[in-house]
Amino acid sequence: MNAHYYGLILAGGRGTRFWPRSRRRWAKQVLNVVGDRSLIQATVDRLKPVIAPERIWILTNDHLRDAIIRQLPEVPKRQVLAEPVQRNTAAAIGLAAHILGSVDRDAVMGVFPSDHVVGKPAPYRAVLRAAFRGAAEGHLMVVGIKPRWPETGYGYVEFPRGSKPGTLAPVPVKRFREKPALAKARRYVAAGNFYWNSGMFFWRTDVLLDELRRHLPKTATMLASLPRFGARTFPEKLKQAFPLCDNISIDYAVLEKAGNVSGIPAGDFEWNDVGSWDAVYELLPHDTCGNVAARESVCLDAFNNFVDARGKTVALVGVKDLIVVDTPDALLVASRARAQKVGDVVKLLEKQKREELL
Amino acid sequence: MNAHYYGLILAGGRGTRFWPRSRRRWAKQVLNVVGDRSLIQATVDRLKPVIAPERIWILTNDHLRDAIIRQLPEVPKRQVLAEPVQRNTAAAIGLAAHILGSVDRDAVMGVFPSDHVVGKPAPYRAVLRAAFRGAAEGHLMVVGIKPRWPETGYGYVEFPRGSKPGTLAPVPVKRFREKPALAKARRYVAAGNFYWNSGMFFWRTDVLLDELRRHLPKTATMLASLPRFGARTFPEKLKQAFPLCDNISIDYAVLEKAGNVSGIPAGDFEWNDVGSWDAVYELLPHDTCGNVAARESVCLDAFNNFVDARGKTVALVGVKDLIVVDTPDALLVASRARAQKVGDVVKLLEKQKREELL
Repeated sequence: MNAHYYGLILAGGRGTRFWPRSRRRWAKQVLNVVGDRSLIQATVDRLKPVIAPERIWILTNDHLRDAIIRQLPEVPKRQVLAEPVQRNTAAAIGLAAHILGSVDRDAVMGVFPSDHVVGKPAPYRAVLRAAFRGAAEGHLMVVGIKPRWPETGYGYVEFPRGSKPGTLAPVPVKRFREKPALAKARRYVAAGNFYWNSGMFFWRTDVLLDELRRHLPKTATMLASLPRFGARTFPEKLKQAFPLCDNISIDYAVLEKAGNVSGIPAGDFEWNDVGSWDAVYELLPHDTCGNVAARESVCLDAFNNFVDARGKTVALVGVKDLIVVDTPDALLVASRARAQKVGDVVKLLEKQKREELL
Repeated sequence: MNAHYYGLILAGGRGTRFWPRSRRRWAKQVLNVVGDRSLIQATVDRLKPVIAPERIWILTNDHLRDAIIRQLPEVPKRQVLAEPVQRNTAAAIGLAAHILGSVDRDAVMGVFPSDHVVGKPAPYRAVLRAAFRGAAEGHLMVVGIKPRWPETGYGYVEFPRGSKPGTLAPVPVKRFREKPALAKARRYVAAGNFYWNSGMFFWRTDVLLDELRRHLPKTATMLASLPRFGARTFPEKLKQAFPLCDNISIDYAVLEKAGNVSGIPAGDFEWNDVGSWDAVYELLPHDTCGNVAARESVCLDAFNNFVDARGKTVALVGVKDLIVVDTPDALLVASRARAQKVGDVVKLLEKQKREELL
């Protein structure tokens, strides 16, 4: 059997928790919040040894398409698509499956978030290859990650009891578990067979489209109505059909209902979903006072702070556990413990119609 | 007896505790940290009903002279003098007494810091006039201010027991007291006859020069060696003589030794020496969460913070009791409790020779 590996990178999010650096036209995934490369550049760098860049496709929105094309010259421009409206992952992934299936009957697609970080790329890629192999055999494949703490912000994948991390063969998934409360998350971690749901999925396009027809018939019909990708009428037809697709995640729509889901229970390849400035703080090297700040900063009696203020000297005096992010028109000062609430600032600015800050 | 009231405004300080807004060329006294007028403009505004602007003289340094001249068009330019080097108050005041005595034999001078704030100008001016009258009669006059709390950052003036605030006649000063520790400051406030030393002084120029000859002969000799103000050789001679003057405050050099010091035990005219950003926080109106911030700021779960960031939107999330001051090249984030330590940032930047930030 022939199997050609394709990558679909989902890059339509706004990353409001990374305001004020993350804006509509300059969102989290195109920012270099960790290191010199943007998150989406690092994603492509990581995938390239497994998936040739000419087989990488990206789904984003109109605001970000130009920035992404500029940042990723190795990805063919026509493969960077803007969704006509924002829909959840089922429609986006279905659209990509429809297109890839039409350009290559042997397409096996891996779906990747554009804004994750991986500390150990080699074991990560071994997991990817294993997941692709399982997908080529016809499985719907997910990747579970051995939890390092009882995180309440992630969904969990339950494998059969005794499943060991590092197994590079498909293991049937027992059940998907929604984001748990802390007590439940602790039980999951203690049990040993619950893994973080990494948000990466692998399947043959025909297998996925079959599942969509079964579980999400309206979306499947809409996608089937599209002309071939590249046809002159494609963009116009997409603009009409896409808003009519169900606004639902692939997890709810397909994975939790399908019977044939398997996964790789992966060990820790230092995966991080970089969900907030506090996650960035944890990822970057700290100075002896626990601060993450440029060398030209001045810290007097200041501990465990995160500072991102390019081209500006920042002085911290007698403060701890703060997030300080400066941009030319907006400045954020937040407690690290409330890093998740930064998105609420964006909601408020939207309510106030302060477009220039969004 | 004729008595012509002159004002000497001391404006040579750097105000390092107001970094990053206060810089060598743009120091605290020329900033509008409270209200629309700079501190020195507000000082002149306050004095004008008592002292004609053409009788106001200002001692500053080379860095600030141009800014002060621009800000105070009503003060004759030739009366804004730059000290050749920074000396303490004895030399500066002695120089002014020397000059004023030579231009007007009936000169009575009042000495005023350039960076204080007065909430109630009318009672303030009544005190000024009383102090000038006492000075015209030959007293060395100081102004004590009824303490509102046991401040450890000010010196105190001890009047005789039973002295009442609001007396507009000279009261002999019993003793000057240095900045006390907190326990002692509490005793001072409880005793009732200890007043904050406001740093304002009033005397006839001949009386002050006599005292200088007695207590600070080297400085007196240096000043006596100067030609008349306005003479072609004056600037050059000043440049030679001034650095040789004693580097000591007028308090230590003269007031604590002279026998004929009197003062006005003033009531509270809402005097504030604006010694730190925290003092500015206390002076300005607070919103319902206790924050001092521009209306375009976003405060989520943020209390009792001070924000000065012109032309920029600042979002505070889950933080309290912070000072946030933003400028184009430097940003300060400090705890209000450590506002006094901001000057240490400047010391450190000096050590690092980061001239562009000083």
